[in-house]
Amino acid sequence: MPSATAKIDLSRLQSLLAGVNEFGRNPLTGGFNRIGFSEADMAVRQWFADQMAADGLAVRRDRAANVFGRFGPADGPSIITGSHLDTVPEGGAFDGALGACVALECVRAMRDAGLNPTTAIEVVATAEEEGRFGGMLGSQAIAGQVTREWIDQARDADGVTLVSAMSAHGLNPDGVLNAARAPNSVRAFLELHIEQGPVLEAAGIPIGIAHSVSGVCNLFVRLEGTANHSGTTPMEMRADAFAGLAEVASAIPAIIRDIGGEESRITIGKVDLTPNAPHTIPGIAEFSIIIRDISEAVMRRLTERLRDVIAAAASLNRLAVAVEQKSWLAPVTLDPELASLLAGEAARQRIPVHSMPSGAGHDAQTMQALCPSALIFVPSKGGVSHAPDESTAWPDIEKGANLLLAALVSLAV
Amino acid sequence: MPSATAKIDLSRLQSLLAGVNEFGRNPLTGGFNRIGFSEADMAVRQWFADQMAADGLAVRRDRAANVFGRFGPADGPSIITGSHLDTVPEGGAFDGALGACVALECVRAMRDAGLNPTTAIEVVATAEEEGRFGGMLGSQAIAGQVTREWIDQARDADGVTLVSAMSAHGLNPDGVLNAARAPNSVRAFLELHIEQGPVLEAAGIPIGIAHSVSGVCNLFVRLEGTANHSGTTPMEMRADAFAGLAEVASAIPAIIRDIGGEESRITIGKVDLTPNAPHTIPGIAEFSIIIRDISEAVMRRLTERLRDVIAAAASLNRLAVAVEQKSWLAPVTLDPELASLLAGEAARQRIPVHSMPSGAGHDAQTMQALCPSALIFVPSKGGVSHAPDESTAWPDIEKGANLLLAALVSLAV
Repeated sequence: MPSATAKIDLSRLQSLLAGVNEFGRNPLTGGFNRIGFSEADMAVRQWFADQMAADGLAVRRDRAANVFGRFGPADGPSIITGSHLDTVPEGGAFDGALGACVALECVRAMRDAGLNPTTAIEVVATAEEEGRFGGMLGSQAIAGQVTREWIDQARDADGVTLVSAMSAHGLNPDGVLNAARAPNSVRAFLELHIEQGPVLEAAGIPIGIAHSVSGVCNLFVRLEGTANHSGTTPMEMRADAFAGLAEVASAIPAIIRDIGGEESRITIGKVDLTPNAPHTIPGIAEFSIIIRDISEAVMRRLTERLRDVIAAAASLNRLAVAVEQKSWLAPVTLDPELASLLAGEAARQRIPVHSMPSGAGHDAQTMQALCPSALIFVPSKGGVSHAPDESTAWPDIEKGANLLLAALVSLAV
Repeated sequence: MPSATAKIDLSRLQSLLAGVNEFGRNPLTGGFNRIGFSEADMAVRQWFADQMAADGLAVRRDRAANVFGRFGPADGPSIITGSHLDTVPEGGAFDGALGACVALECVRAMRDAGLNPTTAIEVVATAEEEGRFGGMLGSQAIAGQVTREWIDQARDADGVTLVSAMSAHGLNPDGVLNAARAPNSVRAFLELHIEQGPVLEAAGIPIGIAHSVSGVCNLFVRLEGTANHSGTTPMEMRADAFAGLAEVASAIPAIIRDIGGEESRITIGKVDLTPNAPHTIPGIAEFSIIIRDISEAVMRRLTERLRDVIAAAASLNRLAVAVEQKSWLAPVTLDPELASLLAGEAARQRIPVHSMPSGAGHDAQTMQALCPSALIFVPSKGGVSHAPDESTAWPDIEKGANLLLAALVSLAV
């Protein structure tokens, strides 16, 4: 039984991840800065390609800057496995990079075990997953979801266009449209990623298998009243924009309780008041509301209720109100057969697993539009991610990597 | 009856105010920038002294940069009247400057009417009322309330010390301690100021007579939870610092209703979240709470209740909490006899007046510690102040100025 003989070499995996993390490290904070299409991102991408080439994989880059290393038959359909190498600003050592490194280590372990796949395995390091340009550009290019309009209009938070960011590295942005893979050319996509949440750690379970990925509705709300003196304006004559926001925010627990589900999440993460001075009643409150659920019907219900609550709070506080829906991503159900395969392999390896939704977005949800896709989680210490102290215990990583390896052997050999 | 013959010359007053407002005007915004001890502030102070000298007043500056113009007997006690010439950044044309100009116009009107006061009248343009250095330095110096510790430690929001700001104009900061006036040397202080609130306008009454000035408690609150991913962290596992703040803010209307008085004001004007990103649960919420009332007992009650509410919200949301009381200014009762005198003169002039508290701080509250003090309000259009569109109708100003004039004649002649 071939899968019994292939085994992850943990110290080799640690070295590979350490090599990736030579790129973009801020020695002052311990954070990593491999922003999509930055110098550090392009350099790590080249370095990772060189590692794969040294292993004898057939390396190619598509025109969205995704890097592939193919193991096994040169022709015919393939199974893709991997994740991204880019990070958020001051991100951690594991988000994305771990999945790409584990994918390559799986191939190395198969090669060491003398396993020759009958279906090719492609290790991928996807491009720009962290959304500098508003999406998951690399995997969306592979899945054929990038439009010319997006390419032409995309800008990062500093106003840099995607076109100029790509051109700076000699990449032709129009080429992104040519990165789409034919649906029948890819049999499956498997990704290992850190959970980025506290659920596995709290449950004491080393592996999560995602059954779905939450949808995301991104609302931007602006409440406008009147910025007046906090001493001279009686309470009943105020139009206090922050008082309106407080009404909305304090209603969230009841909204979740009354009409939400177990996977409902409502978050007000960004708040900007004007003029934001202690002795002045806030004239303007601008804030984000992020609504997530694995059911699109629940997302709709939550969003409608929030709009009602916002309107009532505005009316009560004599505020003008504008609500802009900046984006709506529908939930995605990942492939149940692949999830079953993973659960079966985990049982065989006596690894306890937890079937769970993914609250964060990942390449796997995009790839599911192209081919059956699966997502393996390993626990995040303290639920922390997108920060220098993001961490996962190596014994958990080893379990997750061996599970991915077993699944790849089962599918490809 | 002398007071019948002295009358405000409105166009002369308009010219004087326009002269003051030649200083520090930002032509791009229409706002005024005569920050205490700035170049523009020192220049307007010199210009105003020159106007008073040209009128034959005996001009002197004390060592806190207050400017006085004395009319009447060279010796003996005096009645002081005036306000400040400094502004907040991008302030309006009326806050402070109007009161100093009306005071000088009153003296001009008395002189024109041939009235010779038996008690000297001192027109004052006080220094640094707007609190660049954390108080009302000019009037507090006159009232003997400035300490060496304050002088040595005071810094503005940009970290500039009072010592360096004064030294830049050749002023010796130690001299501020010598600006204190002997209690029996000042019989009364009368100030005219814009209301900076909406009460008079809403009531359709042109004049307010303040009976007291609200006290102010300034709390700085820091709630700290955990900044985690908004998608991966279940609602019940969050430590959301903004959720805690929202609980506190949404409790304010009930706190006012249950234990507040008619003049109670609670304001959350400044909020800073960290990291303040839409997809991240706020890890830290820092905010101000300003509590005002004309009763110190009510202020204490409101503050205690708020501390309880903050503690409960922190506990409910698993947050660490720190509450710092940055300052506590007790309410001040202004002189009731002067208020009666003003009400009587107003009745004689058939001007409707409204007896009211001052929600904002003014020189008169400081001066009350030295001598009987009074504060006349004129309406603020839309309740707006500290902004370029701050405005008061000239017919209202004329009524207020004639009321001040009548009171000065009654007291001094």
